[in-house]
Amino acid sequence: MTDIHTHVIEKAKKAKKAAGNMAVVGSAVKDAALRAMADAILDNRTAIREANAKDLAKAGEYGLTAAMIDRLTLTDKRIEGMAEGLREIASFPDPVGKVTDVVNRPSGIRVGKMTVPIGLIGFIYESRPNVTADAAGLTLKAGNAVLLRGGKEALNSNIALATLLNDAAVSKGVPDGVISIIEKIDREGVRHMIEAEGIIDLVIPRGGKGLIKAVVDGARIPVIKHYEGNCHVYVDKTADLDDAVAITVNSKTQRPGVCNAAETLLVHRDVAGTFLPRAATALKEKGVELRACGRSREIVPDMKEAAADDWYTEYLDLIIAVKVVDSLENAVEHINTYSSKHTDTIVTSDILAADYFVTAVDSSSVMVNASTRFSDGGVYGLGAEIGISTDKLHARGPMGVADLTTYKWVVYGTGSIRT
Amino acid sequence: MTDIHTHVIEKAKKAKKAAGNMAVVGSAVKDAALRAMADAILDNRTAIREANAKDLAKAGEYGLTAAMIDRLTLTDKRIEGMAEGLREIASFPDPVGKVTDVVNRPSGIRVGKMTVPIGLIGFIYESRPNVTADAAGLTLKAGNAVLLRGGKEALNSNIALATLLNDAAVSKGVPDGVISIIEKIDREGVRHMIEAEGIIDLVIPRGGKGLIKAVVDGARIPVIKHYEGNCHVYVDKTADLDDAVAITVNSKTQRPGVCNAAETLLVHRDVAGTFLPRAATALKEKGVELRACGRSREIVPDMKEAAADDWYTEYLDLIIAVKVVDSLENAVEHINTYSSKHTDTIVTSDILAADYFVTAVDSSSVMVNASTRFSDGGVYGLGAEIGISTDKLHARGPMGVADLTTYKWVVYGTGSIRT
Repeated sequence: MTDIHTHVIEKAKKAKKAAGNMAVVGSAVKDAALRAMADAILDNRTAIREANAKDLAKAGEYGLTAAMIDRLTLTDKRIEGMAEGLREIASFPDPVGKVTDVVNRPSGIRVGKMTVPIGLIGFIYESRPNVTADAAGLTLKAGNAVLLRGGKEALNSNIALATLLNDAAVSKGVPDGVISIIEKIDREGVRHMIEAEGIIDLVIPRGGKGLIKAVVDGARIPVIKHYEGNCHVYVDKTADLDDAVAITVNSKTQRPGVCNAAETLLVHRDVAGTFLPRAATALKEKGVELRACGRSREIVPDMKEAAADDWYTEYLDLIIAVKVVDSLENAVEHINTYSSKHTDTIVTSDILAADYFVTAVDSSSVMVNASTRFSDGGVYGLGAEIGISTDKLHARGPMGVADLTTYKWVVYGTGSIRT
Repeated sequence: MTDIHTHVIEKAKKAKKAAGNMAVVGSAVKDAALRAMADAILDNRTAIREANAKDLAKAGEYGLTAAMIDRLTLTDKRIEGMAEGLREIASFPDPVGKVTDVVNRPSGIRVGKMTVPIGLIGFIYESRPNVTADAAGLTLKAGNAVLLRGGKEALNSNIALATLLNDAAVSKGVPDGVISIIEKIDREGVRHMIEAEGIIDLVIPRGGKGLIKAVVDGARIPVIKHYEGNCHVYVDKTADLDDAVAITVNSKTQRPGVCNAAETLLVHRDVAGTFLPRAATALKEKGVELRACGRSREIVPDMKEAAADDWYTEYLDLIIAVKVVDSLENAVEHINTYSSKHTDTIVTSDILAADYFVTAVDSSSVMVNASTRFSDGGVYGLGAEIGISTDKLHARGPMGVADLTTYKWVVYGTGSIRT
């Protein structure tokens, strides 16, 4: 039993107890807590910025890049953004206590399903301290406790935020410990969290591939993760080519550094000759580098040759892989082989082709005549988003606050016994 | 790379390919396959019994008890039961392709969720070879492929069944490999299955605690498991005591060897003096041993004293632990501390007490005025049951065929791009 083990397990046990007591906390208390949390952030912006300044002072020591320092910095706008986010979450309908699928059974019992909190959620993240407020707000709204474990580079900011958020929630009647944070940061702490079977009910890691792999490999408790977004645009032979160009350009360039940006363009051979020159011109105008298969380069010669790795790559940059396919079926096969099962779209006028694509592509979001960039909790109408799941179980694709609940079966009898 | 590793991974890869091709197989083909599977079982009963006889001949060598040999034996009745089960599954509505929650969004896109197969399910089980047909039928109905791994004592029976079920399904147009079985049985095979990240999408273990613990500890892929059923009956101060006695006796004795049988009786102190003598008499008449707390034994002295372990124990036998509690809240606290989160029931006339119990008890089934024995997929109206989940994510409590699906987001635009 090391110090860090004791620290993590004590925090987790206290949070678990808080989670148990949360089950009977009503909507009004939760929403009052969320609004108090928003107020507390605005009232304590000086203290938050002071804590953040301590982290920023160590940025050099931790070797942070300019982009990382930017993500770490809590500007006034970001502090206000956290408060606004919490108020927005307060305004959502309560996802807990929805009773559905109620049936009267021949045995005389009435059976239904009721949405309930999951319990204690372990949330592991990196860099951006404003995630602390998002995660605390969303988990609390769904009636859960959260045990936060941020990156070492944001430790002071995260502790300051988590502490004031928990205190504000407690002031409105939420159990103490509902928002908890691991204060000792090393790899061992993550290990103790993901092995805390029977205490932590679910771990959500958000960060780089290395972190997520470490969590998945070591976890003894359920994990919902977000690996990567290798998204595809497939231009079918009946596609409206104006739409196809617009969707390709938008999917690739509207925000190239995010997971729902397209990384590969597939084109049906029947339209490749007319479509590819137009698409290549439009993409190049936006500064996109094209890496193409041999058949594509016969049509548009001034594209780089794609290597085998390109089909697997999430560039997160102004680069796109391009391939001509012989059929709709081949496009689907390519996607199901190389895609990260995040978001893939078809451009087509043919309803049967659209149906086949929607049914056969095994991805969390499958689209017809729409940009992959729409794959987002806010755009889908979920309100705030806790993450995008590339897993298949429990929650898939954009995860909203309802995905932080589970259900129980509720049975009402009248002194009923089984015969 | 050992032989067993190669064997498991080759089987799994072929099954995964079949799972991919299943996505576009329609309801009519799946149902025809299920009926052909039923026919094949009846047409091949001699071959099935011959394979089963080989297993039975080794029962001595494996040291099987009489009860284990009974579970292993495929009687004519059990063979017919498998065929009937498959026909019943064919008659269920298709759980795949249900589109729900469709909304038009301000961006012009239409978004909804569609139920889809999970993919390749690894099913790990022990002893009873008729589980082979149930698991194959339920996973196929939901559009999945299944990789079966039964116990070594049933190997010949399981291989015979899995092979003829797969062949029958293939004869109706289902991809070959949809029903696959691991033919080399050792612990290493299980390990390779549960580490097959990216190939097997979900593992469902069904068996003893040792097996399940090994699966949970080693898994790198999602697991839905069934640990145990430490179920409670709580008799509240306003309970109808006739109902309370009937529900207690039924929960404990109607079938004591199963997971939804009650193991602990909690009684509110206000009614303990009248209720406990009646309950003790009724339970003793059914041959139940009572292990009670000190306060209970002041009321009914001829009960054994409960040890600390009794509150945690799933007896699966004619034994019940008995405890007097001071309040509804204390009953809930006891349950949330010691229960295995399977099924717990309150007997009460007070609607507020019922609501509190239903909300606060963190179990997969929470009941009011009903026997814990009702906790069952068939009783709840799910049709056949693939298992009872004591996990909280994806599926909780009795799991029917719909729990073998997941969903994808489906987005329709009109050449829509994000601005």
